[in-house]
Amino acid sequence: MPLDLRSLVAPAHTALVTQELQRGVMGDLSQLPALAAGAKDQLPNMAALVHAARAAGVPVLHCTAEQRADGRGGNHNARLFQYMAKTPVRLVRGSEAAEIVPEIEVREEDIVLARLHGLSPFQGTELDFVLRNLGVRTIVGVGVSVNVAIQNLAFDAVNAGYQMVLPRDGVAGFPREYVEQVFAHTLGAVATLVTSEELLAAWR
Amino acid sequence: MPLDLRSLVAPAHTALVTQELQRGVMGDLSQLPALAAGAKDQLPNMAALVHAARAAGVPVLHCTAEQRADGRGGNHNARLFQYMAKTPVRLVRGSEAAEIVPEIEVREEDIVLARLHGLSPFQGTELDFVLRNLGVRTIVGVGVSVNVAIQNLAFDAVNAGYQMVLPRDGVAGFPREYVEQVFAHTLGAVATLVTSEELLAAWR
Amino acid sequence: MPLDLRSLVAPAHTALVTQELQRGVMGDLSQLPALAAGAKDQLPNMAALVHAARAAGVPVLHCTAEQRADGRGGNHNARLFQYMAKTPVRLVRGSEAAEIVPEIEVREEDIVLARLHGLSPFQGTELDFVLRNLGVRTIVGVGVSVNVAIQNLAFDAVNAGYQMVLPRDGVAGFPREYVEQVFAHTLGAVATLVTSEELLAAWR
Amino acid sequence: MPLDLRSLVAPAHTALVTQELQRGVMGDLSQLPALAAGAKDQLPNMAALVHAARAAGVPVLHCTAEQRADGRGGNHNARLFQYMAKTPVRLVRGSEAAEIVPEIEVREEDIVLARLHGLSPFQGTELDFVLRNLGVRTIVGVGVSVNVAIQNLAFDAVNAGYQMVLPRDGVAGFPREYVEQVFAHTLGAVATLVTSEELLAAWR
Repeated sequence: MPLDLRSLVAPAHTALVTQELQRGVMGDLSQLPALAAGAKDQLPNMAALVHAARAAGVPVLHCTAEQRADGRGGNHNARLFQYMAKTPVRLVRGSEAAEIVPEIEVREEDIVLARLHGLSPFQGTELDFVLRNLGVRTIVGVGVSVNVAIQNLAFDAVNAGYQMVLPRDGVAGFPREYVEQVFAHTLGAVATLVTSEELLAAWR
Repeated sequence: MPLDLRSLVAPAHTALVTQELQRGVMGDLSQLPALAAGAKDQLPNMAALVHAARAAGVPVLHCTAEQRADGRGGNHNARLFQYMAKTPVRLVRGSEAAEIVPEIEVREEDIVLARLHGLSPFQGTELDFVLRNLGVRTIVGVGVSVNVAIQNLAFDAVNAGYQMVLPRDGVAGFPREYVEQVFAHTLGAVATLVTSEELLAAWR
Repeated sequence: MPLDLRSLVAPAHTALVTQELQRGVMGDLSQLPALAAGAKDQLPNMAALVHAARAAGVPVLHCTAEQRADGRGGNHNARLFQYMAKTPVRLVRGSEAAEIVPEIEVREEDIVLARLHGLSPFQGTELDFVLRNLGVRTIVGVGVSVNVAIQNLAFDAVNAGYQMVLPRDGVAGFPREYVEQVFAHTLGAVATLVTSEELLAAWR
Repeated sequence: MPLDLRSLVAPAHTALVTQELQRGVMGDLSQLPALAAGAKDQLPNMAALVHAARAAGVPVLHCTAEQRADGRGGNHNARLFQYMAKTPVRLVRGSEAAEIVPEIEVREEDIVLARLHGLSPFQGTELDFVLRNLGVRTIVGVGVSVNVAIQNLAFDAVNAGYQMVLPRDGVAGFPREYVEQVFAHTLGAVATLVTSEELLAAWR
C-alpha cells in the first residue's frame, strides 16, 4: 500500500462513487456481453469496497444512467447512444434493467444520482455539488466502463480539483488487454491506481 | 404582444420550466407566508401556462428542491438554507411538502428534475443538458421566487445562450413592490417580460 | 463586526474577487452613467479592500468582460448585450475601455480572468476552478453591478458551496434605492453583508 | 467519405478546435518526447485542416494550457501535473513554450482560449459558451494528447450535445499502438472518426 494511501482516502474527506453498476449495463440484463463478462469478475471486489466504505463511514454515491420510456431528454449524438437505443433492454426509469445489481444493493444512507443524459456521472448532475457539501476531496471510483465513463469520471474529478483513486480490480472494461493499456497510458497519469485489497486495508 | 413573441416561443424550440411549485415552498405547507401569499394570486396563471404548453407541444419541466431525511448533500452556506432547516416542514423527498401543488400536477409527459443542493434549477442539474437534447433555445419560466431562484434561472439561462421569457404574472416573490423593482432594474435587462395572456395567445 | 467575521474571511481560505471594475463599465469611459455615478462613491472602499487583501495575503482576482473587435463569441440573447453593442465605447480586448480602473490597478500577483461571454464571472470561466486550486472557501466580492452580475456572482458562489461575503459599500448598482432593496430582499438571504470597514478590520 | 460528412461538418454549424498545439507541449520545446514524435508526423495534417477551416469559414479556436510564473491557480492533484512541474520548460504565459507552433500560427480571426487549470479545454473555460454563441453544433478536434485531453474533449463535447469529429491522422498520442486502441475501444463509440483528407474534401 502506498505509504500515504490511508490519509489519501481518510473517511472524513473521501467518497466512494459507483458508476453504472446496473443490471442492464453490466449485470444479468446487460446488452454488452464483453463488458458484463469483465465486470462479473470484479463485482465481488466492488461489493467488498462498498461494504467497507459504509462500515468506515465513507459516503457511498451510486451514479446511474436511465432513460424515460419516451426517450425524452436523452442523447442521440454518439454511436454509443444509438447502439443502446437499438438493444432490446433499455434502462427505463423504474425498470429492472435500471436497478443497481443485488450484490451492491442501495442502502438508505447511500445517495443515488440518476441521469438521463450523457456519458459522465459528473457533467450536468449533482455529483460535484453534493460532494462539496459533504466535504469530500478524494473520490474512489468503482464500476464501468473503463472504455468511457470511468475515464470521463477520472478526468472530471481531476479537473474539479479532487484526488481520484481507482482500484484496478474494481473497475471493468473490454477487451481486458485494453483496460491494462488504459491504466498504463491514461489513467495512471491522472489517478492513483491501487488494488481493492489496499483500499480495504486503508479503511479497516 | 411583441410582434415576434410567437416566433420567440414557438413550440419547436421552447420549453416551459416551473421552478419550485411545491406545496412546502409556495403551497399550503409553505414556511414562507409572504411568498405563499404572492404565489397564490399567480397560481392560476402558472397553471394556465402549464396546460397551454402541454396542449401546444411545448415540453414542461418541473424543477424542484428536495432534501434527504438525513440532510446529506444539501447546502448550509447561506442564511436561506439555515432558515429553511429550522422550519417545521422540510422538503423531504417523498413527503407531501416536496410535492408539486395540485393545481399544476405532474403529467407523465413532463420531466421532473429534483435537486438536493443549491439555489438554482440550472447549476449541477440536468436542466441545461436535457434542454439541449430537446432542441430548446427559449425558456419560459414560471414559479418562485423572484427574490432568488427566478433571477438565478434567468441569469443561468442567458449565460448558457438561451432566450429567457418571463410572464410578470406567472412568477412570484415578496414583497410585491420589490418584485416590480426587480422587473424594472434587473430582469428587464436580461429577459423578455410578458404577460401570461400574451403567452397563452402565442401558444393558441 | 460579526464575531466570527475574522474567521469567515481568514486569508488562508479567502479570495477577493473584483467584478468588472473597468473603465468602460463603471469608470471614466462608462456608457451607463447611473452605474458610474454609484460606483464612483464606492470606488475608494473597493480600492482599500483590494490593497488590504494584498497586504493580508488574500489572493485578488479581477473578473472582466471583454469583446473581440469582430464581436465573435459574445452573447446577443439579452437586451443588456444589445444595449452595450450600440454604445460608442465597446470593451474591446486591449482597449482603454477594457482596462481595470487606475484606482484598483492590476498587480503581478493578481489573477485576471477575462471573458467574452455572459453575465457572470463564474459560468464558463476559470474562477471556480482556480479558487479550488487556491484552497479558497470564502469569496469577498466587490464591483458592479448589484443589478445583475453581483447577484449572479453571489448565487453562483453559493451554488458552488462557497461562503459569499459582500461589503454593502463596496458594490454598486442603480438606482441607489434599488441596491438597498436587493440587499434586504435578495442578497441578505444568500450572502453575509458587511461594511468595508469591518472587512478592513478583519484583515488588519 | 461517409455520405453525410459534408453536412455533419458544414461550415455554418462547425468549429475546428485545436488542443494544446504548443511548442512546450508537442513542439520543439516539448518535455514529452514520445508525444512530440507522434505529433510531428501529424502536424502537416493538422495545419492543412486549420488552413482549410479558415478558407471555408469554419471558426478556428485554439485551446491552450498555460501557467503563471508563480504557479497560482494551477492543479497539483494528478501525477501529470507533478511531472510537468518538474520539467525544465514550463508553459509560462507569454513564454516561447506556451506559444502555438509556427506551422499552425494564430490568425486575428481565430479565438484563443487559454486556461491555467485542468486537463480539458472544456471544463471551466469559455469553449462551450463561445461555441454556443457562434451557433456551433459540430466540433472537429485536432491536437494532443489522445491519452488524455483529446478523449476528455470528446467526452465533454458529447456530454454537452455536440457532434464530435476526429481525424485519426490529426490527433496524436503515445505509444502509437495505444492510439489505435483508443480509436477502436473508446473514441469510436463517441466520435465520428475520419481522415484529414476526408475533412479537406468536405470543406473544399
